[in-house]
Amino acid sequence: MRALIYGGPGNIQCESVQDPILSDQDGAIVKTTLCSICGSDLHPYHLDLGHSGYCIGHEAVGEVIEVGRNVKTFAVGDRVLVPASLGCGLCLPCRQGNVVLCQTHGSHRVFGQGVPGIGGCQAEAIAVPVADSNLYRLADGVSDEVGIMLTDNLATAWYGARRARVGPGDVVAVIGLGAVGLQCVASALAMGAARVLAIDLLADRRALAVKLGAESIDAPDVAAAVLEATKGAGVDVVLDANGGPVTTALAIELVGRGGRVSVLGVSEKVSIAFPILTALRKNLEFHTGVCSVQAELPVLMREIESGRLNSRALSEIITHRMGLSEGSEAYAMFNARKDGMVKVVLDPTR
Amino acid sequence: MRALIYGGPGNIQCESVQDPILSDQDGAIVKTTLCSICGSDLHPYHLDLGHSGYCIGHEAVGEVIEVGRNVKTFAVGDRVLVPASLGCGLCLPCRQGNVVLCQTHGSHRVFGQGVPGIGGCQAEAIAVPVADSNLYRLADGVSDEVGIMLTDNLATAWYGARRARVGPGDVVAVIGLGAVGLQCVASALAMGAARVLAIDLLADRRALAVKLGAESIDAPDVAAAVLEATKGAGVDVVLDANGGPVTTALAIELVGRGGRVSVLGVSEKVSIAFPILTALRKNLEFHTGVCSVQAELPVLMREIESGRLNSRALSEIITHRMGLSEGSEAYAMFNARKDGMVKVVLDPTR
Amino acid sequence: MRALIYGGPGNIQCESVQDPILSDQDGAIVKTTLCSICGSDLHPYHLDLGHSGYCIGHEAVGEVIEVGRNVKTFAVGDRVLVPASLGCGLCLPCRQGNVVLCQTHGSHRVFGQGVPGIGGCQAEAIAVPVADSNLYRLADGVSDEVGIMLTDNLATAWYGARRARVGPGDVVAVIGLGAVGLQCVASALAMGAARVLAIDLLADRRALAVKLGAESIDAPDVAAAVLEATKGAGVDVVLDANGGPVTTALAIELVGRGGRVSVLGVSEKVSIAFPILTALRKNLEFHTGVCSVQAELPVLMREIESGRLNSRALSEIITHRMGLSEGSEAYAMFNARKDGMVKVVLDPTR
Amino acid sequence: MRALIYGGPGNIQCESVQDPILSDQDGAIVKTTLCSICGSDLHPYHLDLGHSGYCIGHEAVGEVIEVGRNVKTFAVGDRVLVPASLGCGLCLPCRQGNVVLCQTHGSHRVFGQGVPGIGGCQAEAIAVPVADSNLYRLADGVSDEVGIMLTDNLATAWYGARRARVGPGDVVAVIGLGAVGLQCVASALAMGAARVLAIDLLADRRALAVKLGAESIDAPDVAAAVLEATKGAGVDVVLDANGGPVTTALAIELVGRGGRVSVLGVSEKVSIAFPILTALRKNLEFHTGVCSVQAELPVLMREIESGRLNSRALSEIITHRMGLSEGSEAYAMFNARKDGMVKVVLDPTR
Repeated sequence: MRALIYGGPGNIQCESVQDPILSDQDGAIVKTTLCSICGSDLHPYHLDLGHSGYCIGHEAVGEVIEVGRNVKTFAVGDRVLVPASLGCGLCLPCRQGNVVLCQTHGSHRVFGQGVPGIGGCQAEAIAVPVADSNLYRLADGVSDEVGIMLTDNLATAWYGARRARVGPGDVVAVIGLGAVGLQCVASALAMGAARVLAIDLLADRRALAVKLGAESIDAPDVAAAVLEATKGAGVDVVLDANGGPVTTALAIELVGRGGRVSVLGVSEKVSIAFPILTALRKNLEFHTGVCSVQAELPVLMREIESGRLNSRALSEIITHRMGLSEGSEAYAMFNARKDGMVKVVLDPTR
Repeated sequence: MRALIYGGPGNIQCESVQDPILSDQDGAIVKTTLCSICGSDLHPYHLDLGHSGYCIGHEAVGEVIEVGRNVKTFAVGDRVLVPASLGCGLCLPCRQGNVVLCQTHGSHRVFGQGVPGIGGCQAEAIAVPVADSNLYRLADGVSDEVGIMLTDNLATAWYGARRARVGPGDVVAVIGLGAVGLQCVASALAMGAARVLAIDLLADRRALAVKLGAESIDAPDVAAAVLEATKGAGVDVVLDANGGPVTTALAIELVGRGGRVSVLGVSEKVSIAFPILTALRKNLEFHTGVCSVQAELPVLMREIESGRLNSRALSEIITHRMGLSEGSEAYAMFNARKDGMVKVVLDPTR
Repeated sequence: MRALIYGGPGNIQCESVQDPILSDQDGAIVKTTLCSICGSDLHPYHLDLGHSGYCIGHEAVGEVIEVGRNVKTFAVGDRVLVPASLGCGLCLPCRQGNVVLCQTHGSHRVFGQGVPGIGGCQAEAIAVPVADSNLYRLADGVSDEVGIMLTDNLATAWYGARRARVGPGDVVAVIGLGAVGLQCVASALAMGAARVLAIDLLADRRALAVKLGAESIDAPDVAAAVLEATKGAGVDVVLDANGGPVTTALAIELVGRGGRVSVLGVSEKVSIAFPILTALRKNLEFHTGVCSVQAELPVLMREIESGRLNSRALSEIITHRMGLSEGSEAYAMFNARKDGMVKVVLDPTR
Repeated sequence: MRALIYGGPGNIQCESVQDPILSDQDGAIVKTTLCSICGSDLHPYHLDLGHSGYCIGHEAVGEVIEVGRNVKTFAVGDRVLVPASLGCGLCLPCRQGNVVLCQTHGSHRVFGQGVPGIGGCQAEAIAVPVADSNLYRLADGVSDEVGIMLTDNLATAWYGARRARVGPGDVVAVIGLGAVGLQCVASALAMGAARVLAIDLLADRRALAVKLGAESIDAPDVAAAVLEATKGAGVDVVLDANGGPVTTALAIELVGRGGRVSVLGVSEKVSIAFPILTALRKNLEFHTGVCSVQAELPVLMREIESGRLNSRALSEIITHRMGLSEGSEAYAMFNARKDGMVKVVLDPTR
């Protein structure tokens, strides 16, 4: 089959590789109908993480084409999404859906990071271990494009907002309006937030946020603008979809006293400067972490199916549609934010 | 001034009475700009509660025209709403806004029930004890008609939904689509509910619920229709805005396993039959109680001001606008649900 | 093997039956080392539920003697407890441990109720379906007698207290000081309750509660005594371990305004009279349900292993130790509360 | 009267000053019966905060000797504690007890920091503004020494543990076993924690923690010892009672995946290095803040009165009892941790 292979920083190529095979009787093979590139795929694109030559990507939807003998809840022909995160299915956190806290693996596992036995999703097919735990059925009427969002970006946005306990009456700021940030806007509003303030340097991304229901913060001094918009109080919650040292410091600056900050983006730095006295004075609640996609999907699927999360609006976050064979170019454009690219999906048949 | 006086079952008259006066330096006098009749005003209209001759009503908005010397947060000229419930302002529950649990009074107090020193709100003016605790500022841009909803019906709906922990993904049924039930629909959706099923015998009330975002359950066998609408699962939450023996039993029938029932309506019976084994098998969580309006207002006001709770849609719940002098007729129409009356407001200048 | 067979009301006999066998490759066979009689076993002992001839009982600990090929987390020789409740292991509630809400079965399943394929635990051996989900490892150093408590009574007590959100500062009343009620005392204190008031007609049971840390309510008028003990406030939480019409009404009488009632006992009546107006005035939160033992065990095992729940004190709840062959007599004594029997365990080797 | 006056770093003197007077009719004057030195009093003792010449201290219990005309809930002769934090009593957070988030003041206010109109507590008498909100009655049978703990240290410990959601089954580590840290041990256990691991360089402080129910971590490599004590899992919660850059980094190292860190100590640095990638991988929940003492007291007083928090054990944290006139020496000893001093109380009559 064809697959995008990571060859080191800046180097992604569409290559022919062996088809995936069932490693044991608990797994399944999924034929990809749509896959996509995530902001976190840019980490290995930027930094040399020390290994290469593996299939990359962790966002895919498709159809089950083979199941192991022990798989009970999926059958050949089922339409599924492949959640980015995966677990052993047996330990207590995995049974509860918190696969990121898997005790068997001892760390969270994600497709497409070169871990032996766990392939990448930017490929024509994927082997999914422990299918009963790690696959998720795509409800009828939920499109592949919405399904792609559910595999990681929307689930991460929802998780981040949920951890920050976004609820009715809250004024929420979202920093960084890529695909995750835009879906933070939609998630916070679906959770009942009174207002969402959208922050990004790019005007077209702010415009997308406004279409989703946010207010654009368009000012040279973002902190001053947020204070003004909240009559000096600061916001109740900040969702930092970027996650670098600059935005996390900004998040703690924007949040009001008694507020909550949730950092979803993955920093490219190991350590950041943390304004501990400001945090203390604000009685700050601070969250960061990686989403266990499986844990968010039951509620998210209901919100999607009922129309509370607007599928059409979510699809507009997908600004580009390309073929898997154009993977190298897609990465380059995504990295450069060229041509207003926010989210690109790849069709594996092309 | 003129005021509606309760003269026993079926007997409400607009009469001339003495103007209210400040009983101490903690109180305030509010000149009413709009008042209204609540479903619970029909209890004394139906049943002889053993005392009469007092001013009735507990829903009013108006303007402060006099304040005691110790009042610190209100001044003459302030536009306010008068929450239905009131407390001492000093005990722990009152300080936290849970005035219904007031330890000083030992029971919840409501305007217009003939308690000495606590007048009624269907009048040209009202004396409000402990104004700093019991009055609430009406934000600019919030109309008197929305303010009237906040004094009791909307606050009660919100409180009932909040106690039932309505949140994203929930399928909610609302029984009884009077003013409280319709605002349960709006509240549940604002809290993120995926779906709201609206139940009432009257088609025009169901139509109002649909305008607010609900699905109408229009079937001779409501329980069967709800099961079908939920693929046999039952709903996650039932909000019973009626509260009689029949609707509470229906609520426990409609709710799914692991679900929650919140009874907001006030039963006219002291005791009801409770299907305890069904409740046990469903692992039921059951709530009932009276709303401390003051506790709900901070979040509700934000939801109103931000437009998350749609003021225009809420105003449509008000089907009739009459003068205070027409109070007797208004009660009769409201009791008979005549002319499609759902909610009637009374203008004290007429 | 020998097993206790239910032959209709008042009729339990120790008989020879066929050994259990693996019904599929997901199950396991457990050789019982200790089993016991639960208060809910008295329901079929009192009432003709319409079927008989099956092995009864749902509390057992033992050793795994056979596992199906697909069982991954248990092996022959493992020391285990058999939780009373069991689920399919695949649906969302079961995966989260809420086996009582199993969507596959559509109702909760318990060992020893004559459901085809699900045997009873008062036997020398038990077939446990879907062992990875339904069995639980007994930690080293946790005795069989404590393990027996964890299979149902202690888990149920903990669940009931947890649903009522017992926490620091709470004053809790426990009604009915059988094995579940006594463990409610221990659970509430382990959760930080400030005080526990213990209510039962039998002085020896109240004495056991006092040894566990409770205050005995020993008065002809229990309601008056509880009001006096709480300076007129009533208690924050009532745990009703009995569950009949009388005790549930008492629970709602004892609870203070803003309080919570959790009914753990299983009523022998389908419907009870419920004081809905009192409940409304108290802003009551009311819970009832059946415990998913698997969901409580992770925390409970930690509380046991750390000594926070005192194993020695829990063992004192076991007042009688008999042989399986004495099952008929044990039931008769337990039913009559003869000789101060609170909890009886049965040794399957005798 | 006599009072301890802050004269700059390292300089505290007992001096004669004017008696406090009522500034308005909402306040009260409290004659001090016991006061004490808090760890946070060492900040101005170490650092030049730019102003001096004011009375220091924020921990006192005493007797009301004068009340303003508007004070409703206190009278001359009442035995009270003076909570360290104070608010306006009128804004929403203050009404709910969250005085630290006071919207009128715009920042948290504490006695003894030189703010005009707010005196210090290391004095023979104290003027308390808005007494109905800011004073708290000391229950009969609660000693002055326990009352002193409630004014700040115990309330802060409880608040920190509560924010970290310490509950049954949790394994908790406490870093820094001064008065706050030791009371974190007691608080975590009262909340149901399964185990508490106590960390401090000083063996005598660890011994005090063990007396309160903790396990001492006594090893050169604390992180390795905690991992070993938790079989590699790390702890569920870390309470950092120290709060400097070193201990906060240690806290994030000790906590397990999915765990919570609560920083109670006040850092003397504005900013610290924060291991954001480790925090992300652990799905960290992080809290810091200043305690609103008033918000914690209702539950704490119940835990004290019921004996769940052991008054005798808490009193053992007070290692030294001196006279107010020995204030200068007491500060020097406390700063040097001389003679095993953990907590020193000052008798204003000496």
